[in-house]
Amino acid sequence: MTEIIFNQDDFPYLDKYFRRNLINCLSGFKSLNLVGSKGKDEQLNLAPFSQIIHVGATPALMGMLVRPDSVPRHTLTNILETGYYTFNHVKEEFFKEAHQCSARYEQSEFEATGIEPYFSDEHPAPYVKEASLKVGLKFEERQDLKINGTIFIIGSVIEIIIPEDCLNTDGYIDIEKAGSLTCSGLDAYHVTQRLARLSYAKPDQLLKELD
Amino acid sequence: MTEIIFNQDDFPYLDKYFRRNLINCLSGFKSLNLVGSKGKDEQLNLAPFSQIIHVGATPALMGMLVRPDSVPRHTLTNILETGYYTFNHVKEEFFKEAHQCSARYEQSEFEATGIEPYFSDEHPAPYVKEASLKVGLKFEERQDLKINGTIFIIGSVIEIIIPEDCLNTDGYIDIEKAGSLTCSGLDAYHVTQRLARLSYAKPDQLLKELD
Repeated sequence: MTEIIFNQDDFPYLDKYFRRNLINCLSGFKSLNLVGSKGKDEQLNLAPFSQIIHVGATPALMGMLVRPDSVPRHTLTNILETGYYTFNHVKEEFFKEAHQCSARYEQSEFEATGIEPYFSDEHPAPYVKEASLKVGLKFEERQDLKINGTIFIIGSVIEIIIPEDCLNTDGYIDIEKAGSLTCSGLDAYHVTQRLARLSYAKPDQLLKELD
Repeated sequence: MTEIIFNQDDFPYLDKYFRRNLINCLSGFKSLNLVGSKGKDEQLNLAPFSQIIHVGATPALMGMLVRPDSVPRHTLTNILETGYYTFNHVKEEFFKEAHQCSARYEQSEFEATGIEPYFSDEHPAPYVKEASLKVGLKFEERQDLKINGTIFIIGSVIEIIIPEDCLNTDGYIDIEKAGSLTCSGLDAYHVTQRLARLSYAKPDQLLKELD
């Protein structure tokens, strides 16, 4: 197998667009969520994010990385001003509309793309009605990275809405069955096919495949 | 569609194992990497991580979230002591061995699982020879989250090794063609199938599918 090697001395000489694509692919497949929020002016905002990670189960915490607020960043502003936001898994049925939410609209992305909002009684920010999984969050902590000014936002989970037939008895949510997509790079969308769930690994013990 | 709703008042009453599975599924599909490092004693370490995200393209930066070091965490110790580590995408051919690397071995996970290390001339930490994509990193910054003590580690990319036939002319790396897997929850592994790459989104402009 022939391989291409880039090292850090090459990076400054790469075309800017080429480098953005290249570096954005390195982490592997990504979480794909539409983040819903509401402005102080009541305008509903929706933006796709792929830098979202699990932070802890007890308490239930999730993190998202947001680029510096040197240009208008409605999502970040809304989270910091109102304290509430939602994560919504994207399905094949609306992945193009989800991608379109990354355009710089002045109006609400819900109106611009036709994605329908959904409000629960327990959470003030808008969910995406058709999302395969919905998570309501409350802002908890902000960490500003010294090295490039990106902002890591940590929120606590206050509500989870799951299709009933996708929740296994052991708590595992079958997000593939629910239709959640993954993404790679800046613009590629993928469905998945499960190979297996594997038992907890211990030294000198054979792995089993779980149901 | 019938839905199940959990809210934060339910969490304390959920079985601990159920809750861990549930909350770990919320972020969606995850990055799946084996992280390679070397101890001061020269022992090679390899551990699976799914909390890895893109941090920036210029400079090229990646982040990983590590649980608190209340129990031995060889990867974190090695990164902080030596400054170097690698990310390696996992393929179907060795995903069970990759999962097995999460067991608490005293010996090197390379020896315990039979995964073969690879060393480049440019980077001191071990890569995984069979990985579909290899990234060499240098430690840059550490952020300790106040809320639960997890540690966000930021590294700069100093080397990238890619199969030649998986690099598109625009810099996009076809990690699906390379065979990289994604994972969900704590223990599920998935292959992917690409739906499309979509053009940069602008208001009032139709999206195109890219090649």
